[in-house]
Amino acid sequence: MALLIQKGWLHDHGVVDILIRDGRIAEIGPDLVLDDETDPERLDASGLAVVPGLVNGHTHAAMTLFRGYGDDMHLLEWLEKRIWPAEAKLTEEDVYWGTKLACLEMIRSGTVSFQDMYWHFHGMARAVEEMGVRAGVGAVMIDVAGPDQAEQCKRDAEQMLEESSRYSDRVRFVLTPHAIYTVSPESLRWVAEFSEKNDLLTHIHLSETPTEVSQCLEQHGVRPALHLDNCGLLTPRALLAHGVHLEEDELDLIAKRGSTIVTNPVSNMKLAVGGVFPYSKAAERGIPMALGTDGAASNNSLDLFQDLKVFALIQKHADQDPTALPATDAWPVVTGAKAPLLGQSGVVAEGEKADLLLIRREEIEVTPQHDFVSNMVYVATGQVVDSTIVDGKILMRHREIAGEEEIRREASERARVICGG
Amino acid sequence: MALLIQKGWLHDHGVVDILIRDGRIAEIGPDLVLDDETDPERLDASGLAVVPGLVNGHTHAAMTLFRGYGDDMHLLEWLEKRIWPAEAKLTEEDVYWGTKLACLEMIRSGTVSFQDMYWHFHGMARAVEEMGVRAGVGAVMIDVAGPDQAEQCKRDAEQMLEESSRYSDRVRFVLTPHAIYTVSPESLRWVAEFSEKNDLLTHIHLSETPTEVSQCLEQHGVRPALHLDNCGLLTPRALLAHGVHLEEDELDLIAKRGSTIVTNPVSNMKLAVGGVFPYSKAAERGIPMALGTDGAASNNSLDLFQDLKVFALIQKHADQDPTALPATDAWPVVTGAKAPLLGQSGVVAEGEKADLLLIRREEIEVTPQHDFVSNMVYVATGQVVDSTIVDGKILMRHREIAGEEEIRREASERARVICGG
Repeated sequence: MALLIQKGWLHDHGVVDILIRDGRIAEIGPDLVLDDETDPERLDASGLAVVPGLVNGHTHAAMTLFRGYGDDMHLLEWLEKRIWPAEAKLTEEDVYWGTKLACLEMIRSGTVSFQDMYWHFHGMARAVEEMGVRAGVGAVMIDVAGPDQAEQCKRDAEQMLEESSRYSDRVRFVLTPHAIYTVSPESLRWVAEFSEKNDLLTHIHLSETPTEVSQCLEQHGVRPALHLDNCGLLTPRALLAHGVHLEEDELDLIAKRGSTIVTNPVSNMKLAVGGVFPYSKAAERGIPMALGTDGAASNNSLDLFQDLKVFALIQKHADQDPTALPATDAWPVVTGAKAPLLGQSGVVAEGEKADLLLIRREEIEVTPQHDFVSNMVYVATGQVVDSTIVDGKILMRHREIAGEEEIRREASERARVICGG
Repeated sequence: MALLIQKGWLHDHGVVDILIRDGRIAEIGPDLVLDDETDPERLDASGLAVVPGLVNGHTHAAMTLFRGYGDDMHLLEWLEKRIWPAEAKLTEEDVYWGTKLACLEMIRSGTVSFQDMYWHFHGMARAVEEMGVRAGVGAVMIDVAGPDQAEQCKRDAEQMLEESSRYSDRVRFVLTPHAIYTVSPESLRWVAEFSEKNDLLTHIHLSETPTEVSQCLEQHGVRPALHLDNCGLLTPRALLAHGVHLEEDELDLIAKRGSTIVTNPVSNMKLAVGGVFPYSKAAERGIPMALGTDGAASNNSLDLFQDLKVFALIQKHADQDPTALPATDAWPVVTGAKAPLLGQSGVVAEGEKADLLLIRREEIEVTPQHDFVSNMVYVATGQVVDSTIVDGKILMRHREIAGEEEIRREASERARVICGG
């Protein structure tokens, strides 16, 4: 089935038609003339800009169920009194609905692909499959309870890898060891081997808090990035979430290994982790990077447009330099153009995946149009997204998404029951 | 004319009707029974929350015309190469349209009242009058060119005060001396006297950058707050925009004098002013405060919902404490409840001004509803505003505003011409 986006405005191109076939951009040009056999679905993009879809490099999607359930608390108190008791009650079906709610929010705000880290693999995978977006999903590995837990996690991972074949290639099975302070070096080494053998992405929290760094130094005698490398997990397949407290030699090592860092500026500020991802130093070294929202329980939004602005703001603030992280450098971070590992080129061009957004570039908030990219970074919220297309299929058409009300109702009710509201 | 808001949800009250007469809230209650003579206009608020309108304590409204025209530049370069040449071309009519565009954006995002600081008084005042919001408007006083300029500014202020009587009381004439580094002590003293004599609010930039502080110390031998006090301008009528670089003794003095500080976190971060408004210290002292967006050229949005989140985030980050500035403390700052000087109580109650918003509390982004205030602070953007009511009149009804397209078109075209696009 073909799709024809008509009269969209493409930055540096002007008004064009875009023909999509088999999930890829087949042709771009002004007033495309189609052959007689092509009878595509048509999508009117008059007055709309066409941009690549956004990529969320780190989230816990189903935690939308806990949005606003315990803000402004100290981390341990929040985990012990709110999150852990609530998570203990979660079923696969809860995760399925929570992930659907997250996908809905992401589609509405222009995210086409995300890297998830949560429990109940099939709950996440089914939701992603049905909602039409792309995601990396696995199951959290944690072995603080000892070797039995570690073995269980390994068996689960092997089984999930096998079962992941039942989903389309939009659902990518990834390994998600939680963090260096919750997974033993032995288990991290197993993840490294399993990842290499099966060519799987590994997604882990790294250097989020000062406590993590000091514990790592105490227990392993080295800082987190070196410890991870010692366990064989600093590879080109590694996705490192947070990367706040990284020193120069750690950045050198990450650059050398070709791992990708995902910064989560809003979550880091909300949880007051005591630092800022060293963007300028990472960029100087050419380290691949992406932007993440983290989960809705610690953000509390999944709207990458808002987080993109905060990313630029906190970097300028931290560097005490208004020219730090200019809009033109921030934009390719959110489209995935700076993180090849995540599989999105961030480019609208023939041959690329048809994962696109139509943007209301004449909305009041982004008027006047002195600078389109500036408006995307410093003004736009997810509400400027008119339509979201993934794999050549329209997931949101002029802000309409099928089944929205059912998801809202079901997820709300489950959230209420789980949290005892 | 009366207005009846039907079946709105009021925090801590539940579902109620709200009857408005003569611009004030006359009655609140479940299923109000009206007498036979009352035949109000009706506004359906089913599924919507009713909250007080938001207050923008510091902006330069017409600078919407320069949105995105020169981001990511050093301050002086930006002013010299972009803003000053553009501003030199601005006519009263340009300011009128730029202010209308700003009002449109504010109405769409729930701002009912703002404090402006810009040129061309009647351009601003006419726009505010027609758009239906409330604003404090004056004309910038700057006398860097010497005594002649000072005299001209004084004559202008006297004339504007007189001419301001032609507008409704939604347009409040205020004195807007630009800053301590652009207005001489003599002129500041004149402003103080004129303000006292005519009971006028004074709105000035204070302690935005380290340069301002060091220049003040060099020229006047004291820090900015004390200098302002020496000029008689630290009064209960004083609105101090920014207040980033304030030391403890300055905060003590501001508290003693009863002046109001307006923090502009997004602008401060974007321009990398090298500090953060010391919220916790100001709050401890009971200093009145409000939130401002600053102009669209340095934000680049006028959406207070987004800035409210950044305000909470940057305070947690600065204090390295996730419990700093909790949502319940941030919300009353944006409704004006913490800044009596600005004339909005921030409370929905009988007898109060009918400056209200209807909020789409069932929108996907604010689902589930564990905590309404958390959702307003950490998730909502201006797009959750369904309807905006000022002085008992509906300025936006279910996201429709009369005349929107004309304003967008006219302001866009003027912005293009002025900036030579």
